[in-house]
Amino acid sequence: MTTIQDKKAQFQLKTPKGTRDYDEKEMTIRNSLFATITNIFQRHGAVTIDTPVFEMRDILSGKYGEDSKLIYDLANQGGEDCSLRYDLTVPFARYLAMQGKKDAQQMKRYQIAKVYRRDQPVMTKGRLREFYQCDFDIAGQYDPMIPDAEVLKILCETLDAVDIKFKIKLNHRQILDGIFQVSGVPSNKIRSISSAVDKLDKLSWQDVKKEMTVEKGLDESVADRIGTYVEGLKGKDTASLLQYLQNDVEFMKNASASQGVADVRLLLEFLDVFNVKDRVHLDLSLARGLDYYTGIIYEAVQTESEGVGSIAAGGRYDDLVGMFSGTNKNGKSKTIPCVGVSVGVERVFSILMARQNMEKIKSTATQVYIISVGDGLLKERMALVNELWEAGIKASFMLKNKPKLEKQWLACEKEQIPFAVILGKDELENAKVRIKDMRVNVL
Amino acid sequence: MTTIQDKKAQFQLKTPKGTRDYDEKEMTIRNSLFATITNIFQRHGAVTIDTPVFEMRDILSGKYGEDSKLIYDLANQGGEDCSLRYDLTVPFARYLAMQGKKDAQQMKRYQIAKVYRRDQPVMTKGRLREFYQCDFDIAGQYDPMIPDAEVLKILCETLDAVDIKFKIKLNHRQILDGIFQVSGVPSNKIRSISSAVDKLDKLSWQDVKKEMTVEKGLDESVADRIGTYVEGLKGKDTASLLQYLQNDVEFMKNASASQGVADVRLLLEFLDVFNVKDRVHLDLSLARGLDYYTGIIYEAVQTESEGVGSIAAGGRYDDLVGMFSGTNKNGKSKTIPCVGVSVGVERVFSILMARQNMEKIKSTATQVYIISVGDGLLKERMALVNELWEAGIKASFMLKNKPKLEKQWLACEKEQIPFAVILGKDELENAKVRIKDMRVNVL
Repeated sequence: MTTIQDKKAQFQLKTPKGTRDYDEKEMTIRNSLFATITNIFQRHGAVTIDTPVFEMRDILSGKYGEDSKLIYDLANQGGEDCSLRYDLTVPFARYLAMQGKKDAQQMKRYQIAKVYRRDQPVMTKGRLREFYQCDFDIAGQYDPMIPDAEVLKILCETLDAVDIKFKIKLNHRQILDGIFQVSGVPSNKIRSISSAVDKLDKLSWQDVKKEMTVEKGLDESVADRIGTYVEGLKGKDTASLLQYLQNDVEFMKNASASQGVADVRLLLEFLDVFNVKDRVHLDLSLARGLDYYTGIIYEAVQTESEGVGSIAAGGRYDDLVGMFSGTNKNGKSKTIPCVGVSVGVERVFSILMARQNMEKIKSTATQVYIISVGDGLLKERMALVNELWEAGIKASFMLKNKPKLEKQWLACEKEQIPFAVILGKDELENAKVRIKDMRVNVL
Repeated sequence: MTTIQDKKAQFQLKTPKGTRDYDEKEMTIRNSLFATITNIFQRHGAVTIDTPVFEMRDILSGKYGEDSKLIYDLANQGGEDCSLRYDLTVPFARYLAMQGKKDAQQMKRYQIAKVYRRDQPVMTKGRLREFYQCDFDIAGQYDPMIPDAEVLKILCETLDAVDIKFKIKLNHRQILDGIFQVSGVPSNKIRSISSAVDKLDKLSWQDVKKEMTVEKGLDESVADRIGTYVEGLKGKDTASLLQYLQNDVEFMKNASASQGVADVRLLLEFLDVFNVKDRVHLDLSLARGLDYYTGIIYEAVQTESEGVGSIAAGGRYDDLVGMFSGTNKNGKSKTIPCVGVSVGVERVFSILMARQNMEKIKSTATQVYIISVGDGLLKERMALVNELWEAGIKASFMLKNKPKLEKQWLACEKEQIPFAVILGKDELENAKVRIKDMRVNVL
């Protein structure tokens, strides 16, 4: 023990805070989860792209609202300020802007990759500082709500495929903006008041109101008016909520509000065709912290157990690409409208792992294990395994000169290898092998 | 243009130096390359693990010799000094040390992941600052040269599978140490003189000798003696080289040297059984810069064209895990002997891309495209595509209310989708669709 202590004085044998390793069994589950999700994304015609793990720092700044403080910076060792990516959405928008006139004007793309946030880690809940996101986005000028409906369909297919019970909370930035405008929020305070509303899933209305008034200097009467919408209408189903808003004459006079309501109505028509309308629930208290959303926003929450919170989220962001691509000669923005969803796969992974019988997970793909009886027969085993490899068969043998018979059987069983090929003196003399079907033991 | 200039004043629309995006066609080739390599790695019984993209800085320090200056550091924003991983070998050794008494004492593992080096990028040659490595390693106490032979067999299978012409240069750290000891290199200079020898593939013997003597203060007579081995024996084939060394009585008296020669002889016997002996060429000038190798070392170089250099490399590193795991109660190192190979897949990728007809790469997996004739039929197309999705069929449609017929055909052809399903008024009335086999056009 002392020596380990001595060593510890020199370095800590650990992964950095909020990061972790994944062993072979966890990887087996994770890769099967990714394969399931990839299959769904490809079913909807998506291609995949790859972007660097870090971006120029200026690309990320001003995109994440109050959460920008969670961005990891690289040390400046060579003249460029870079940061690890915070999500896959901003890099995708940067990618689209850089592609210029290429085919990327219209694109369905998925990306399954790691992102980085200096958040307070809660390892047991799957909240890490390095974690995977599975993103699907549709970029391009299409007709209203068609891509939005497809993205929500994909989200439902994905969570169904991994057998997660969920519901989707839906809102629209223009409905929210309408609420804020009708309630009398000054336009320079809209984003920060929106951030406060976003906390309603964790804080009480009283606490959120306090943040609006005491911290953010909003008039109490304005806050109360916001409250009639975001708190007072809670529990209403989507149809009654839409009806209520449409009956609110003052609200519907607001251009932003009425556009938002029309969008949601059209979206629900399409979701009905896609058989997922009942999965989606209009929730006026859903705000989403990120700055870049411009249209519908949504969040999938698990309904089986408390506390896991949001497992996927997304929305429409029509102006983000334009923030990078600028304007054309006539001063018109060269933006590309986009809508997408990001599945927080670590939380899904935690749920799946909890369901597993770890013993039964087979981590290798090995089909055949070669076992020698008697005197080692190293080169004979090597020649045989080589023959199998060259025939494309996944085969293993014990990397010892004279392995014990018992240890070879154990290795074969432990790895759940379906076939054992037994080689002994008799077999060699007759140029034969014995094959044992191990699957009866495995099942 | 002025507006773009204005924007450029605020940020640069680019990826960081030495990094790049991969578009959908490049990803199609890259994913198929990874699938090929993964299949080979799994054929040899490997599992996969995942480790974080960054490590505690102390874990990486002192492992990479003169190249340590190329490590990317993260800014210290939260109390820990972290760096991006430089390779996958050191994190794997750290992982093994942390697993302690678990099954990881013996492990075949592969990992395909990005590593980071602040090197001078040469994009045209595929030398980037962020790049993929495909690693296969065998950890555990086995009998001599059996795992080493399997790793070299895997390297040959991998490069054969991607149709790269190559040869493998082989050396042994103990042979090199023997050469240095016999030549009279002081023991504290062995690693730095070894680094100089490693440059013989880029520099002339005169330049390397100058580095040894002028820069590193080695006696000229010692340098000359090294030269008789690493330069004087160039061009000899493996068998004559081994014979030459075995006839060198003084050399063979050195314990390190004779062990190295014995290892290489045994390795060649095993490689012969694995049908890859002729791929491997003993080369006394191969040194490999990294500090952690202890046994055989090797490098695969492409033989088709000049200048691409090493496309894969590896070796045995028996002490690296012990640097993390320390010693047991009796002061005995708790190390795990390892041997492995790392395929520098970016270079292979560059070669593969150069062979492609970009037009013919199909990036989506879409099987069916739905085309409406006449009046848009949006909801009818949506209902049909939904039916296909729910049957697991990869299907797409144009996300427009009333898409033009010609544009729909173009989209179908451009994505090389094999089947078009045509929906019109007549078809709807008869509850039928027309199916067109598009593959004749594609081929």
